[in-house]
Amino acid sequence: MNQASPETFRAFEAATGKPIEPDYSSSTLEDVERACAAAEGAFDTYRELPADKRASFLEAIGDEIMAIGDDLLERAHKESGLPMARLTGERGRTVGQLKLFAEVVREERWRGVRIDPALPDREPAPRPDLRLRMIPLGPVAIFGASNFPLAFSTAGGDTASALAAGCPVVIKGHPAHPGTDTMVFEAMKRAASKTGMPDGVVNHLTGASNEIGGALVQNPHIAAVGFTGSRGGGLALQRLAQQRDVPIPVYAEMSSVNPVVLMPDALAADAEKLGKGFVSSLVMGAGQFCTNPGLILAIDGDDLRTFEAAAAEALKGQKAQTMLTTDIAKSYSEGAKRLSGAPGIEELARGEAGDGVTCDAARLFAASGAAVKDHPELLEEVFGASSLIVRCADMDELRDLLRDLEGQLTATLYMKDGDAEEAATLVPILERTSGRILVNGWPTGVEVAHAMVHGGPYPATTDARTTSVGTLAIDRFLRPVSYQALPERLLPAELRDDSSAPRMVDGKPA
Amino acid sequence: MNQASPETFRAFEAATGKPIEPDYSSSTLEDVERACAAAEGAFDTYRELPADKRASFLEAIGDEIMAIGDDLLERAHKESGLPMARLTGERGRTVGQLKLFAEVVREERWRGVRIDPALPDREPAPRPDLRLRMIPLGPVAIFGASNFPLAFSTAGGDTASALAAGCPVVIKGHPAHPGTDTMVFEAMKRAASKTGMPDGVVNHLTGASNEIGGALVQNPHIAAVGFTGSRGGGLALQRLAQQRDVPIPVYAEMSSVNPVVLMPDALAADAEKLGKGFVSSLVMGAGQFCTNPGLILAIDGDDLRTFEAAAAEALKGQKAQTMLTTDIAKSYSEGAKRLSGAPGIEELARGEAGDGVTCDAARLFAASGAAVKDHPELLEEVFGASSLIVRCADMDELRDLLRDLEGQLTATLYMKDGDAEEAATLVPILERTSGRILVNGWPTGVEVAHAMVHGGPYPATTDARTTSVGTLAIDRFLRPVSYQALPERLLPAELRDDSSAPRMVDGKPA
Repeated sequence: MNQASPETFRAFEAATGKPIEPDYSSSTLEDVERACAAAEGAFDTYRELPADKRASFLEAIGDEIMAIGDDLLERAHKESGLPMARLTGERGRTVGQLKLFAEVVREERWRGVRIDPALPDREPAPRPDLRLRMIPLGPVAIFGASNFPLAFSTAGGDTASALAAGCPVVIKGHPAHPGTDTMVFEAMKRAASKTGMPDGVVNHLTGASNEIGGALVQNPHIAAVGFTGSRGGGLALQRLAQQRDVPIPVYAEMSSVNPVVLMPDALAADAEKLGKGFVSSLVMGAGQFCTNPGLILAIDGDDLRTFEAAAAEALKGQKAQTMLTTDIAKSYSEGAKRLSGAPGIEELARGEAGDGVTCDAARLFAASGAAVKDHPELLEEVFGASSLIVRCADMDELRDLLRDLEGQLTATLYMKDGDAEEAATLVPILERTSGRILVNGWPTGVEVAHAMVHGGPYPATTDARTTSVGTLAIDRFLRPVSYQALPERLLPAELRDDSSAPRMVDGKPA
Repeated sequence: MNQASPETFRAFEAATGKPIEPDYSSSTLEDVERACAAAEGAFDTYRELPADKRASFLEAIGDEIMAIGDDLLERAHKESGLPMARLTGERGRTVGQLKLFAEVVREERWRGVRIDPALPDREPAPRPDLRLRMIPLGPVAIFGASNFPLAFSTAGGDTASALAAGCPVVIKGHPAHPGTDTMVFEAMKRAASKTGMPDGVVNHLTGASNEIGGALVQNPHIAAVGFTGSRGGGLALQRLAQQRDVPIPVYAEMSSVNPVVLMPDALAADAEKLGKGFVSSLVMGAGQFCTNPGLILAIDGDDLRTFEAAAAEALKGQKAQTMLTTDIAKSYSEGAKRLSGAPGIEELARGEAGDGVTCDAARLFAASGAAVKDHPELLEEVFGASSLIVRCADMDELRDLLRDLEGQLTATLYMKDGDAEEAATLVPILERTSGRILVNGWPTGVEVAHAMVHGGPYPATTDARTTSVGTLAIDRFLRPVSYQALPERLLPAELRDDSSAPRMVDGKPA
């Protein structure tokens, strides 16, 4: 042991805060070295496996996760406090995500093959044969998220997309759910073994020490980082990555208040219904979604007050759910308390406290547009079931507030036909603010699909050019290489003339 | 004026070091503010212009550049010292590049449209309609390069790709060629006016002050940076960009020694011819290419010595050409002198000095693999016509040296059929080292093509995931946005059902 942290650690039952058996060993700095070296050792073999083999590996991970059965869900429930139904859905999403990436891998579009054939007779100079493909960056460090113990942790979206791209992974399990993490990692190991993957394609680190995570990001074998979590955590990893001798990309999905604009006609028609729907989205999963609606913007007036009243009424009846960890619950309580006492803010409603140690009540606040303009700190995310309604004087004020918002994962418009003209003027603002724009739907559902963007301008993420959910996420772990005048036998298989990989020839699909 | 630098400045004739008429005014910090605000003001209009209008603008820039006629080439020749023939070619490349990006814009593949239609009957939950497109990042700051006064300066590759992506530009002209820069910028203004572009789509800053460049990168309206130049310059801009409240991507193409491996059979067959060809590539443009072959690696022996002798002989007859600026010439002389006196190094040959003040002689050095391993500073780039031959003990030593190299723009193999087996084992190493791999050609020609990569791992560039030459460069200035359940009238045109923009539907080309 060369670290200050204890040799073993345990999970805590989310609902009671009590430690749960068994002990898990904390990784050491030597373990980091070993894991990264193993990933590096696997890289050249793994990245050149035929697409079908890599795809089968991803599918096998899904199968092995299912094969664990209910033990996995029960352990995840204990460790995270998330309801079984949610976890069952999340497992389905995790396995579906792996299968979707398997499909993507097989179709080989991610290879981005481009061929510009030689033009030996071109004047004034001949053109050489040029062929381009995307290659994986190298071993990827992945940090499990607290709020998705399955779909954004050990075998979650970052892992699936990195493995799909051809990158071995070194996974730092989230210390709040070591049991879930370990079960899933063991499933990955079985899948790797059954499908004949090279040793070191998947690697695992455990423990609560930040030192281990820092060493992982700074290890010279690591070529990129995937992270979902707090802004503080994401930015710390980003700084470490930038300080390396060779800086590497960090894909950190950090925080967002996910503005929802209620347009006048929509409010006029559906104020009550919207108020209830809003609260359902707000309290889902104890509000512990990156896309939780933490900010409502509307023009002040009777309709908005009707919405507020309906939302307040609905919220009051909500009994608080167990939060993921005592730390998260503590942050939530502090954030909610800070808002309660803040200048210009009105507490509209508070839900019921829950039974567990981590079940502080949901909160609903309101403030004027002017107050928010004077106190932009009111707009900071409170991770959990807390939301702020901003009563704007008019559409100009609303528009200005939207324009000044920090980068967001999502932005939503509730609207009717009569709002369309005004709404159209908001779309360009929302595009610059966020990664996903929704109409007439709450942002908390994130489809794993081809056209999904779960990303957005800083500080929603560290890199707005990508997404961490959906098939486009594979591009995060690739870079282009051009091959000039290589003889056929030296060319990678997918760049040869006889390959069936999709390709652009002279800039046209061929 | 709120800056220390003088109000006006002049260019210097490269060949004589003497100032040339007329005076050019130095931009102030207010000019930076004004230019960036103008670019921001143009953004929302420019980015939503139909593809064809944007393409016509790019073509018109090319036409207006041609319409300047020989005055442009003559001024560029005076300011840069580059020969007229080279500049004529470079102008063709610049105009061709603009036309190629116009084609790319028209084909609309850069929009990356993806549609996942709604699945209202899906169980357990319906899927909403999801549509994704790439949108431009925002105004882009572009720094003109000293070594390509046309093709990588004012209307060069960075500008063409940023404008193609839909980003207004703020161009900081290179202070070594203000006349060339200004003529080209005026051509851009005429093109913008003739094709009805919004005011502020192209903006211009001048002067030799680093303060202006720094303020430009830190201006909150700027969303990305394109730069080609020294490592020091690129990293300084990168640091400034990372320190912003909202960090932005910097695409800096910085430095490379462009290793060339001479495989045994190639050397055995063609040592002399290769030696001569090498020197032609080395001295081209006074060695002032990013892809200049600054490092030769081969197994020591009679064949390598024959290559060396031929190269030395060829180099001795080379009269030094005018370098771009006195500063660059000074750095070159210092770098060459440093190598001359370095431990373990042998100076094989020196060319003739040239007639001008900036015409230090070309240099050729040799060292053993062991010496280079002990003194990795020998591998640092000397920008200009200087190259180092590394005599390796065997293929293992050569392979280790390749593996330990810093990131490179290019890596080249000279080989014959008999070398293929060994060469194939080097390709995976070269892929991780560089952005372009060549066989049996010198790296100094960079095609503007679809399958080109002019990029590579750090520190060749600040971002290995891209290229600064070729059509893939447009992707640097785009990010994805997803639109969920938007009514048709709110959808951007290219996401509507009736659009002809190429698209993927449910992950398949449609």
